Amino acid sequence: MKTISENKSYGGVQGVYSHTSQACSCDMTFAVYMPPQAEKGPVPCLWYLSGLTCTHENAMTKAGLQAHAAEFGLAIVFPDTSPRGDDVANDDAYDLGQGAGFYVNAGETPWSPHFQMEKYVASELRDLVTEQFGISVHHGITGHSMGGHGALTLAMKYPGHFQSLSAFAPIANPTRSDWGRKQLSAYLGSDESLWAAHDATLLLKDRGWNGDVLIDQGGEDQFFDLLKPDALVNALVETKTAHQYRLQAGYDHSYYFVSTFARDHVAWHAERLTS
Amino acid sequence: MKTISENKSYGGVQGVYSHTSQACSCDMTFAVYMPPQAEKGPVPCLWYLSGLTCTHENAMTKAGLQAHAAEFGLAIVFPDTSPRGDDVANDDAYDLGQGAGFYVNAGETPWSPHFQMEKYVASELRDLVTEQFGISVHHGITGHSMGGHGALTLAMKYPGHFQSLSAFAPIANPTRSDWGRKQLSAYLGSDESLWAAHDATLLLKDRGWNGDVLIDQGGEDQFFDLLKPDALVNALVETKTAHQYRLQAGYDHSYYFVSTFARDHVAWHAERLTS
Repeated sequence: MKTISENKSYGGVQGVYSHTSQACSCDMTFAVYMPPQAEKGPVPCLWYLSGLTCTHENAMTKAGLQAHAAEFGLAIVFPDTSPRGDDVANDDAYDLGQGAGFYVNAGETPWSPHFQMEKYVASELRDLVTEQFGISVHHGITGHSMGGHGALTLAMKYPGHFQSLSAFAPIANPTRSDWGRKQLSAYLGSDESLWAAHDATLLLKDRGWNGDVLIDQGGEDQFFDLLKPDALVNALVETKTAHQYRLQAGYDHSYYFVSTFARDHVAWHAERLTS
Repeated sequence: MKTISENKSYGGVQGVYSHTSQACSCDMTFAVYMPPQAEKGPVPCLWYLSGLTCTHENAMTKAGLQAHAAEFGLAIVFPDTSPRGDDVANDDAYDLGQGAGFYVNAGETPWSPHFQMEKYVASELRDLVTEQFGISVHHGITGHSMGGHGALTLAMKYPGHFQSLSAFAPIANPTRSDWGRKQLSAYLGSDESLWAAHDATLLLKDRGWNGDVLIDQGGEDQFFDLLKPDALVNALVETKTAHQYRLQAGYDHSYYFVSTFARDHVAWHAERLTS
């Protein structure tokens, strides 16, 4: 693991690091914020998964999470959204290939050699940061848009790995959306039965989530039709899953929306990870 | 005035606008955050001047100021740091020309036709935002690095325009620094007597500041030698100017430093502008 930068922030340290990923067979960059409380012992950890076109950097610089992490004593991990590099397959579209890993393990060419983001986030990077930083066994997960999809699906698929869950404007029903069908088809192939394990709405009905979940959705989100929040809301109600779903009037899909409600999410995770 | 974007943020609106500046003879872009309190009537306003290489956008996306502006009920204005455009003079160096206006009115070629940032910020843009937004007559000013220099010097030169003052790691004594001598020479010419009115340390001794001032400086600032904070501290003590100077151990020159202490500055201005 190589240190790219470390900056003091709210009494803690915002670091950016790189390492050679076995899962993705390439160098990966990620960021970790360690709060001041980490000086006294291991702290719980919140994973923040980013959306289409993002790297580890967008949320790190624009979401304002460090202030809240320092207040509540949580570490925050910001993974990249895909493998990257000249040797890594890509596509001209913004929503496929590099910057658009969708948090799945690809089985199809040309994606399968590197696009193993599910394995990477849920196992490899989790093991690495737990080993390298003063992080406790208590992990929560959140994310925005494609990252909200990642948070919801990874939490349900790996319930032992994540004890708390929330999402900002998640892609909620990708098997029924152009933000999903295109990518699941490319990465997993045409057998739609393989897609269900990567759809939060379907996973909730199939496996459920052993806990509660907080979801914020902007009422003026320009991608509302692609996100399909209604399908997830219906599934939450139908499965009687404990949840808070908040439709925030006037907010769009940007980081102005994420940052406005970031403190509520950090508090949500802190309450569940430290009690 | 043209609206480029408006995003709801912390209950208020973060907008980006452009207009044709008379002072700078070119189109200029600026940002304004209006807090939710503005719905009920005029609010005080804090000016945030940015540093070298920045536009209106850096602080708007990375400083986290909106949260605090919404908490304390202040508008925030983010001007650009120079005139811009293909017809505007420039230099290959990052610290001269576009992105490096230094908040002075240039009298030398090729800069004088457009580089009139002092006039632009202290008068033209101030008049425009006061007229176009629900902003009261109470204005405060702050800034970072070159913007800290701008805040300190414009406040002292235009005491009727700004009633509260603070700065983050300001260029504090530019007539004695490579961050200053080069630019003041280019913009104002070789007569150093003209430079003194653009040096916070010299202005403080000459005109003084009719109020108190808050200054934060990172202890691990990589540009410490160029900023020359000691000269300003000595002048503050010598002139018996009421002040808080805080050397923040471990912090560098980045927005991680600015965002960490941003709330203290907004609170400082709010206390002085709303009492």
